[in-house]
Amino acid sequence: MHSFEELAVKFENHFNKRHFPSNPSTLYDAAQYILKIGGKRVRPVGVLMGNELFSEIQDDAFHVATAIELFHNFSLIHDDIMDKAPLRRGVETVHTKYGDSTALLAGDVMLVAAYEEINKIHSSKLHDILNLFNKTAKEVCEGQQLDMDFELKDQVHFEEYLQMITLKTSVLLAASMQMGAILGGAGAGNQDHLYEVGKNLGIAFQVQDDYLDAFGNPDKFGKQVGGDILANKKTFLLIHALDVANAQQKKELQHLLKGNDPDKIERVLQIFKDCKVGEWASTLKQQYFNLAMKHLEATAVLHSRKESLEKLAQYLLPRES
Amino acid sequence: MHSFEELAVKFENHFNKRHFPSNPSTLYDAAQYILKIGGKRVRPVGVLMGNELFSEIQDDAFHVATAIELFHNFSLIHDDIMDKAPLRRGVETVHTKYGDSTALLAGDVMLVAAYEEINKIHSSKLHDILNLFNKTAKEVCEGQQLDMDFELKDQVHFEEYLQMITLKTSVLLAASMQMGAILGGAGAGNQDHLYEVGKNLGIAFQVQDDYLDAFGNPDKFGKQVGGDILANKKTFLLIHALDVANAQQKKELQHLLKGNDPDKIERVLQIFKDCKVGEWASTLKQQYFNLAMKHLEATAVLHSRKESLEKLAQYLLPRES
Repeated sequence: MHSFEELAVKFENHFNKRHFPSNPSTLYDAAQYILKIGGKRVRPVGVLMGNELFSEIQDDAFHVATAIELFHNFSLIHDDIMDKAPLRRGVETVHTKYGDSTALLAGDVMLVAAYEEINKIHSSKLHDILNLFNKTAKEVCEGQQLDMDFELKDQVHFEEYLQMITLKTSVLLAASMQMGAILGGAGAGNQDHLYEVGKNLGIAFQVQDDYLDAFGNPDKFGKQVGGDILANKKTFLLIHALDVANAQQKKELQHLLKGNDPDKIERVLQIFKDCKVGEWASTLKQQYFNLAMKHLEATAVLHSRKESLEKLAQYLLPRES
Repeated sequence: MHSFEELAVKFENHFNKRHFPSNPSTLYDAAQYILKIGGKRVRPVGVLMGNELFSEIQDDAFHVATAIELFHNFSLIHDDIMDKAPLRRGVETVHTKYGDSTALLAGDVMLVAAYEEINKIHSSKLHDILNLFNKTAKEVCEGQQLDMDFELKDQVHFEEYLQMITLKTSVLLAASMQMGAILGGAGAGNQDHLYEVGKNLGIAFQVQDDYLDAFGNPDKFGKQVGGDILANKKTFLLIHALDVANAQQKKELQHLLKGNDPDKIERVLQIFKDCKVGEWASTLKQQYFNLAMKHLEATAVLHSRKESLEKLAQYLLPRES
């Protein structure tokens, strides 16, 4: 069994190449550009881990892992266009550097490249992998649409937000792990468990991300603390605060959301603290983490095989944050 | 054997349904909208005809035909965003009606839906169909990128334009016919012939389209005559005129292209006529038509099976225009 770090290196060695033809360079250089920006590669490693739970890591798992990473980057390019985001990981986004039209096409061609990787699978599993990949791809698009829809809504309920964020960010990790399991020959029950492991880890990670944006140590977190508050982003924290705040707190929150007071972050954070939103988020994160571990526990393979996945979960979701 | 009209009706009966879930309606209504605008459905009928050349029409051919039509509509949605086109077939484009972001996502989800249709194939041909579909999808993106690149270039050579327009518009018809042949059990030689039939018909059709825009009868053509000239669009005609014009004609053409003289269309057309561009285009169209027919001739099936395809070719490319 390999650790997350080992698998990340293995994947990077496989992935770190030119994925596109040279011409037209105006199109393919733009597509290649985002792949060089890098990332944690959690999803492709999820494929490899799901695979290694049931077999030696197969060549097909590398193809699927590559497809997942290409798909993820397709969605980043298009999301950045929609969000008009100038930067990603501190460097120019594709559309900022190459223009909206080329970025749109680079995303399209990246999605097709993902399907090309899937079609490299030798096994009889092509149909099942495609099925899950297609379902997941549509869900990710649905999540992005719901996210945009929510920007126009005054009130978003917890269950709605949970559904949106699950589609937008968690189903891809879930599908990654399940695809690894499918290739490894797992039965339907084990496949479902792996899917739930990925999905619940993804949700827990998103709760943590929302929490850290408000309460994190800026040196460790690497982003501006309070960025979500400043941008009026709907998050687990804000939605819960609006749910539990008393009439006066709610009125103040809504007033703060409408304006741009210089002490906006500070005052919203104070309401969050008064409403014990941080404690609530820690508990929520732990609930989803536990749910993920319960499904890992229920997966019918030797416990020793599960250690890497447990460590990945602890690495992504340390207890102290 | 069925005629084009019969197959178009058969396809429409199969295709005319809701292709997407109901929710989120903000996303899926936008995707469904463009499918209602309609079209000639030449490409999906190409799949069915390619299929019927070698077998009874199979269910799988309807799945592939649907995938091709969904892919075509995906490319229309995204092209219209890039071209900032307000109208298509006289009605609002998707991005005009639903906004750029939703149109972008609706295109994405349409492309995924195309792959879902392909994955409905029961046969052992899934790998080969996917292979050709992916290759073609990338080529269509390349064609669109080259088209955008050419807008910024002063001079485009005939061969470059031919390559761009082949990728942008002809390979999809070519692949449609070949996919039908693949499903029907055609060997590699016959598959190649069918691909060339579609490709050359596609090029001939594009030459005709460029010709009609300049010289067509506006009542029959249904578009504003001279629209390409007014928009400085690079076309077969303009590129050839710049190739063969004498120094004075060339100078005048370049002057006209830079400005917006009220008699621009008239004067450009006069140069086209003086350079015999119309006759050249008719000959060029006929050459590609003949090439398509040569490949159909060379396809190793009974001649009687080829009549529908011959009639389709004559219907798309009547001699008089």
